[in-house]
Amino acid sequence: MPKKVDHEARRREIAEAVLRLAAADGLESVSLRQVAAEAGISMGAVQHYFRTKDDMLGFALEHLARRREDRITARLSAGGAVPTVRELVRVSALEVLPTDEPSRADYLAGIAFFIRALREPRTAGLLTEGAPKLYDFFAGQLLRAQAAGELAEGADPYREVVLLWSMVDGQSSALLLGECSAEDAVATIEYHLDRLFLPVEAPVTMG
Amino acid sequence: MPKKVDHEARRREIAEAVLRLAAADGLESVSLRQVAAEAGISMGAVQHYFRTKDDMLGFALEHLARRREDRITARLSAGGAVPTVRELVRVSALEVLPTDEPSRADYLAGIAFFIRALREPRTAGLLTEGAPKLYDFFAGQLLRAQAAGELAEGADPYREVVLLWSMVDGQSSALLLGECSAEDAVATIEYHLDRLFLPVEAPVTMG
Repeated sequence: MPKKVDHEARRREIAEAVLRLAAADGLESVSLRQVAAEAGISMGAVQHYFRTKDDMLGFALEHLARRREDRITARLSAGGAVPTVRELVRVSALEVLPTDEPSRADYLAGIAFFIRALREPRTAGLLTEGAPKLYDFFAGQLLRAQAAGELAEGADPYREVVLLWSMVDGQSSALLLGECSAEDAVATIEYHLDRLFLPVEAPVTMG
Repeated sequence: MPKKVDHEARRREIAEAVLRLAAADGLESVSLRQVAAEAGISMGAVQHYFRTKDDMLGFALEHLARRREDRITARLSAGGAVPTVRELVRVSALEVLPTDEPSRADYLAGIAFFIRALREPRTAGLLTEGAPKLYDFFAGQLLRAQAAGELAEGADPYREVVLLWSMVDGQSSALLLGECSAEDAVATIEYHLDRLFLPVEAPVTMG
């Protein structure tokens, strides 16, 4: 089915163009003309692949999430062994922090959607509809850690996920403003994870 | 010295106008003309009170911080008794959360400065130069709580302040987007404070 593949590939190229424009100039005044020019195709072609602007922005947001997920998966696989929940949470949080060019571009694109969402309810809808799935995934992981006795006493998995992403969000903003260094932001997240997860105990060797 | 008083009052009025414009439309395209119109004075008068735009924006940011501080102080004084460190931290965090009109206007104005700061290093400078003073104040308070044995074991006061403001920031964004309710955001902050501060023990009554 080469036609189907081309279709999806072209939609991804357009999404990449939207995300580049968003990261560079925001989404306040982004036009069909700019997206077409950035993607190197005609305005008609953009309209062929996305019926409405909301369709296009929604797909671009999903593409952003997928791009991040791919980077997280790549970092986790590089480790070889099956990651612990703590490692999964840690790598996910650190990958979202704008500490290098890909993560910075993604974070700036995300802020562009956020800014648009403040004045445009449909964009707010797009931005928030992905959150429960993300939160549920990580809450499920923390529940698993809790069942294995790896979580601090009294920790509420769902609350912890909300709190963790809030913290990553706040540290990312501080980082973008130059209020803290990448090392500082990473250290703050590690500090918090040290509290959330119980220290891994070395196996007892019977003498 | 009535002249001096008028001068400061006029500067505050201009700052209020800047903050109203920032909350409503952002600061990207704010002009001297708009500020003068919003403040109900002439452009020449605005220029008389502030020599440069940076001067004006810097003063508006300080005014924003003062306005928040005044609301925090009012809430704390309403309690009557001298507040505990936990109560001080709690009230400060909850007052920053955009849960009513004044806090929402202030948060939106803050976001406008943040957005401008992403493209304008001088605004980033204005925005970050106030942070160390704020962080030091709260770190000092947490150190005091630690000395009094009110803080969880192993808590690092400075790290906790950074983390706390990150969390408030992240929860505020989620709240603005409608991703969570005000009750949820408040509950997340209370949940975190319950972990950071040790429970106050009831005095032991000797039988």
